[in-house]
Amino acid sequence: MTQVKFLPSRKKASVDPAATIAEAARRAGLALELPCGGKGTCGRCRVTIVSGDVVRYSPPPEGAAPEEALACKTAVGPSDCVIEAVEHDLAAEDRGGDFSEMEIPYKSAGPLVEEHRIKVPGPRPDDGLSDFDRTNRELGRNFGTDRIKWDLSAMRSLPEELRIDDGILAVYACKGDEGISIAGARSWKSRAKNLGVAVDLGTTTVSARIVDPGEGLALSEMTGYNDQIHCGEDIISRIHYAARPGGLAELRQRALDTVNRLIAGALERCGAAAEDLHCAVVSANTVMTHLILGLLPEYLRLAPYTPALLSVPEMRASDVGLALNSSGIVRFSPSVGSYVGGDITTGLLCTDMATAEDIALFIDVGTNGEIVLGNRDYLLTCACSAGPAFEGAGIGCGMRAMEGAVNSVSVDKSSGLPTPEVIGGGKARGICGSGMIDLIGELFLSGWLDRSGRFERIRQSPAIELEGRRARYRLAEGEKTLIDGPLFITEQDIDNVMRAKAAVYSACDLLLGHAGIGFADLSRVYIAGGFGKHLSIANAITIGLFPDIPEERFSYLGNSSLEGATRLLLSKEAREILIETAGRMTYINLSDEAGYAERYSAALFLPHTDLESFPSVAGRIRKAK
Amino acid sequence: MTQVKFLPSRKKASVDPAATIAEAARRAGLALELPCGGKGTCGRCRVTIVSGDVVRYSPPPEGAAPEEALACKTAVGPSDCVIEAVEHDLAAEDRGGDFSEMEIPYKSAGPLVEEHRIKVPGPRPDDGLSDFDRTNRELGRNFGTDRIKWDLSAMRSLPEELRIDDGILAVYACKGDEGISIAGARSWKSRAKNLGVAVDLGTTTVSARIVDPGEGLALSEMTGYNDQIHCGEDIISRIHYAARPGGLAELRQRALDTVNRLIAGALERCGAAAEDLHCAVVSANTVMTHLILGLLPEYLRLAPYTPALLSVPEMRASDVGLALNSSGIVRFSPSVGSYVGGDITTGLLCTDMATAEDIALFIDVGTNGEIVLGNRDYLLTCACSAGPAFEGAGIGCGMRAMEGAVNSVSVDKSSGLPTPEVIGGGKARGICGSGMIDLIGELFLSGWLDRSGRFERIRQSPAIELEGRRARYRLAEGEKTLIDGPLFITEQDIDNVMRAKAAVYSACDLLLGHAGIGFADLSRVYIAGGFGKHLSIANAITIGLFPDIPEERFSYLGNSSLEGATRLLLSKEAREILIETAGRMTYINLSDEAGYAERYSAALFLPHTDLESFPSVAGRIRKAK
Repeated sequence: MTQVKFLPSRKKASVDPAATIAEAARRAGLALELPCGGKGTCGRCRVTIVSGDVVRYSPPPEGAAPEEALACKTAVGPSDCVIEAVEHDLAAEDRGGDFSEMEIPYKSAGPLVEEHRIKVPGPRPDDGLSDFDRTNRELGRNFGTDRIKWDLSAMRSLPEELRIDDGILAVYACKGDEGISIAGARSWKSRAKNLGVAVDLGTTTVSARIVDPGEGLALSEMTGYNDQIHCGEDIISRIHYAARPGGLAELRQRALDTVNRLIAGALERCGAAAEDLHCAVVSANTVMTHLILGLLPEYLRLAPYTPALLSVPEMRASDVGLALNSSGIVRFSPSVGSYVGGDITTGLLCTDMATAEDIALFIDVGTNGEIVLGNRDYLLTCACSAGPAFEGAGIGCGMRAMEGAVNSVSVDKSSGLPTPEVIGGGKARGICGSGMIDLIGELFLSGWLDRSGRFERIRQSPAIELEGRRARYRLAEGEKTLIDGPLFITEQDIDNVMRAKAAVYSACDLLLGHAGIGFADLSRVYIAGGFGKHLSIANAITIGLFPDIPEERFSYLGNSSLEGATRLLLSKEAREILIETAGRMTYINLSDEAGYAERYSAALFLPHTDLESFPSVAGRIRKAK
Repeated sequence: MTQVKFLPSRKKASVDPAATIAEAARRAGLALELPCGGKGTCGRCRVTIVSGDVVRYSPPPEGAAPEEALACKTAVGPSDCVIEAVEHDLAAEDRGGDFSEMEIPYKSAGPLVEEHRIKVPGPRPDDGLSDFDRTNRELGRNFGTDRIKWDLSAMRSLPEELRIDDGILAVYACKGDEGISIAGARSWKSRAKNLGVAVDLGTTTVSARIVDPGEGLALSEMTGYNDQIHCGEDIISRIHYAARPGGLAELRQRALDTVNRLIAGALERCGAAAEDLHCAVVSANTVMTHLILGLLPEYLRLAPYTPALLSVPEMRASDVGLALNSSGIVRFSPSVGSYVGGDITTGLLCTDMATAEDIALFIDVGTNGEIVLGNRDYLLTCACSAGPAFEGAGIGCGMRAMEGAVNSVSVDKSSGLPTPEVIGGGKARGICGSGMIDLIGELFLSGWLDRSGRFERIRQSPAIELEGRRARYRLAEGEKTLIDGPLFITEQDIDNVMRAKAAVYSACDLLLGHAGIGFADLSRVYIAGGFGKHLSIANAITIGLFPDIPEERFSYLGNSSLEGATRLLLSKEAREILIETAGRMTYINLSDEAGYAERYSAALFLPHTDLESFPSVAGRIRKAK
C-alpha cells in the first residue's frame, strides 16, 4: 500500500499503488472538485506533486507547472507521496432555517399521513382474534376498507403498544388507491408527533423541510450540498460514474447520507425525532430518483433515452433507506421523461398552470433547463442542456451564489469600468450566474460588448485588456479580491453563458412553436430554481435568456420543488393535481426536433439574431446610442 | 474477562465475570442441553467444575457430587476456570434426502409462482414509456390486471435484463387476491429455474424440501434440529427466552440460520441456487411463526393467550430474511389459535377432512398434542400440553428416536424380562417415545404393571428392583448399553408418559363430546408427526393414548406439515382449501373447559378409568389372565 498525504489539510490515505490521486483523496475524506466525474476533461482537480513518483495518464493542463497534475488522471506509484491539494469549497456547512416564528399560509386539507385515535377492544378468550385481527377490524370500521397494509416493523411493535394504554392507539395511516398503509401505530399515551418531511433532492443542492401536516406548518429545514458532487458535478458525469463497478451503490449511499444528514439536522432544529416522521415526499429529477433507489441510470444517457421508471410505487422508509420511522411512507413525485423529472411536476404545484385558462411558461434554470408550457388544456415540456455556466461552473472565476460571489454589476457607459456588488459585502472571490447575466447585459447595452459577445477592440477601456487576438475584462482589481490577483472575465466565459442562454431560450421558443403561439400570448412566466433570488429580469431579457415581455408577468418561485413537495404532504388536492398534470404532460425530446438546432444558432447572439423579437431591448439599444 | 475452558471439547470462551456457565458455553459454541430455557428447573445442564471459583445461584441437583453444578444457575468468578461438560447430542448432522429416482405423485395445478415468457417491446423515442411502464403494460395484457407489485430488488435488475435478450423475459409471477406479485424477472436467455421450497419449521426439527412446481416434483430435502433448542427445548421456554433482552432477536436469527442452512443444503443436493427459488411456503406452529418474524410471543403465554397474529400477509424473502431470490414470495400457513398453528392447518391437507362427509380425527403428537375433529361441515380443534415424554425428555434415560434408542420392547409374561429392540441394532443408549409406549403396554398386559402405573410388588421379577417404597425396571443390562450401567425405567418415568397420554386422549374425548359423537363414529384417525414411524398402534391403544377402535381406521401421515406445504406450492386448490378450512376451524381452549380436568383425571389409568370405553383392551386383559 502506498501512503498518500495531502497538504495543507494533512489528510492521509493508504491506497493500492496505481490508484489515482482522486481515489486517494476520496479515501482521505478530502473533497476535490471533479465536475467531469474523473474523465480528465474539466481540469478542475489540479493538484501539485510535492514528493513521490506518480504516473500521469494525461498531459498536464495547459499552462500548468511541471509539478502540477490532474488528480483524476494521475496514479500514485509504489513509493509514498505528498500532494498539495486545495480542498473544494463544497464542504460548506449545511444551512438551516426555522419557521417557528413565521405564519406559513398552508391549508392542510387531507395530509398524506393522518393520525387517528382508535380504541382496540382487549383480547377475549372466546373470539379467537389475534392482536392484529382486532386492530384491523377496528381500522376497517374507521376507514371502510379491509385493505390494510402493514409492514413487519409496525406489526412487531403492535402487541406491546396495544397493552400500554388499554388498546387506545394512535395510528398513522396513509390512504391510497389500494387501501390504507399503516405508517406506524403507537399507544395513545406514548404516541409520537405526526410529522412529515419534504425532500428536494437536487443534483447539486438538497433540502429537507419538516412539516406538521395537522397544523399545516413548516417547522424547520436544512439545505446542503449533495455528497454525490464528489462523483461528478452534472447529471451526465453521475450517469458515467454509476456505470463503474460499485459506482451505483456509492451514489445511492451518498444520496441517502445527504438526505438523512439534512433530515437529522432539521429534526434537531424543531426538537423532533426520526420516529415522529411518518411520511416523506421526495422530489427529484429523473436521474436522482434512479440513483437514490439504486436503479441504473445508464439507459437515460443512451438513445432513445429510456428511464427505468417514471412513477415510483409507494415505498416504506426502510426499503428506501431513509431515516424516518421505519414503517414511514415514502412517495416520489412522478417524472415525465428522462430529463423532466419529479422536481418539475412538483414545482408546477406552485403555479396555477394545471387549472388556469391563460397560458403560462415555467422555466427552471440549473445545469439543465426544464421548461413547461401550457394551461388546463395542454402541457408541453422539454429539457435543454444549459451547462453549468449559470451555476458558476464553466466560467474561469465562476462560483455559486454564496458569500464572496459577485452577484450584480453595473458598468460605466463611458469608461467601461465595473461596479460589482459582492454577496456578504466583502472582497470578491468569483462571480455567480446572476452576476454574469448582469455583467453581459450591462456591457452589451453600454456598447463594450458586441452582439456576438466580443469585447470592443477599437474604443479603449481601462477594464478591457487586449493581448493579440484575445481580450479579457477586469471585473475586480487584485486588492478587492480574495484570490491572488484580479478577477478576469474572458470571451470564452461569455461564450459559455451565451450558449447556456441560447439553449434555454430556444427551448422555450420551440415549445411555443409547437403550441402555435408567440411569447406575447403568455400571461405569466414562472422562474424556478435557487438562481431566481439574485437575478435581474431586465438583464436576463437583455441578454436574451428570457423572452421580451413585460417584467410584471414574471414570477420568482424560488425552490418550487421543495415548496411543491411540502404541499404534497399537506393536501390531497395537490396530490391529485400532481398525478393529473404528470399524466398529461407531453415530453418533447429536443434531440429529435429538427427545428431546435436552427433556433439555438439564432439565439447565439445578444439578445438574438432576430432583434424584432426583443423590441424593448432594441429600444434600450437605440436609447443607449 | 474470565477465560472459560470446556472439557473434553477444549472449546473456550472469554466472558464477563458473573456470566453464567451456560452463557459461556453458548459463546464457546458448545451445545448444552437446556430444555427449561435456563430456569434451573430441569437439571439437564449439569456440568462438573474442574477448576476455578464459581458462584452457584441454586442448590446442586439432587444426588449431585459437590463439584457438579447447573450451568444455567452458576456464574463464573473473576478467575479463569475449566468446566467439564458433555456436549449435547443435538449437533447431530442434518439429514438429507433426494427424490430424483422417485416418482412423486404430485399433480401440479396452479403453482404458487409460475414462470411466464413475455416479450416486452423495445424502448421508443416517441412513446415516452419507461422500462417499467412497458413491462407492466405487457404483464397487464398477460394477466388482465394492472395491479402488479414489484419490490425494489426486481425493479433494479429489470433494465439490464430487458436488454440481454431483446426484451424477452422470464417473469416469475404469483397471483394473489390483490393482483400479481413479481417474484423476479430475468432475460429469457439467462433465466433461472423456477423452484420453490416447502419449509416445516418445528420446535425441535426443521425440514426444507425443494420443489419444482412446473414438473410437480420434489427434488431434494434436508432435515435438522432447530438451533433455537439451545435457548430452551419446549415452546414455553422459548417464550420465556424471547422476553430476555436480545432474546427475541437471537431466536429469530437462530430460526433463520437453521432454515437457511437447510435450504442451502437441499439446493446443493439438487444442483440449484438460491436465485432459482422464487417462493417458499413456511408451515410452523403459532409460536415459531412469531419467532421467525421477530414478533414477541409473550402474550401467547399469558391469559387470555392472544397471538400477535394468526394470518401473515404475503411477504418477500428479503423482508423475512430467507435465503431465496430476494424478491421471492413467502407465504406462511395461517394459524387458528395460540397453540394450533399453521403446521396443523397445513397438515390437514394430507387428509380429506375438509371435503369428506365422514367424520375423522387428526392427532399430531409432539411436545404439544394438537387435535382436529370434523368433516366438511365442521372442524373443532384444540391443543394439549403432553409434555416432552413422547420425545424422550422427562424420562430418566429418554432420548429421541435415533440410533441407540430402544424403540420397541416385548416383555416375557412369566418372568417380566424385556426383549428390547434398538434403532441401528447396536447397544442401547436410552429409550424413545414409541419404546416407552410398547414397554408400558407390554408390562401392563403381562400383569407386571397395574392400572395406576405401579410395578408389581408381590410377585417377583428379576427385572423389577424394589428399594423401600420405590421400584424400578431394568430395561437393559449394563453390558448391553452405551452408558455407564444398566437402563432403568422408574415409576416416575411411567407416570410422565401416563400424564402425556391422558392429556392427548382426554383432549380427543372432549372434542368428541363437543360434537356429540363417540369414538366409534370416527371413520378414520390420522396420526401426524415424526413419532408415527416407530409406533405400535395396538400398544398405543392398550395404554389408552389412542381410542379403542379398529386398527385399520388409523393412518400414519408422517410429516404432514412438510407434505402439506409441498402441496401449497403446487396447487391452487390446496391453497384455497387451506384458507377455507383455517377460516372455519373452531379453536377450543382447554384451559377454559370445565370438563377437561375431569376427563384428564379419568384418563390417568391404564388404559382408562372406564374400561368399557376400551373393549378390545379389556378383552386382551381377560385373555392375558
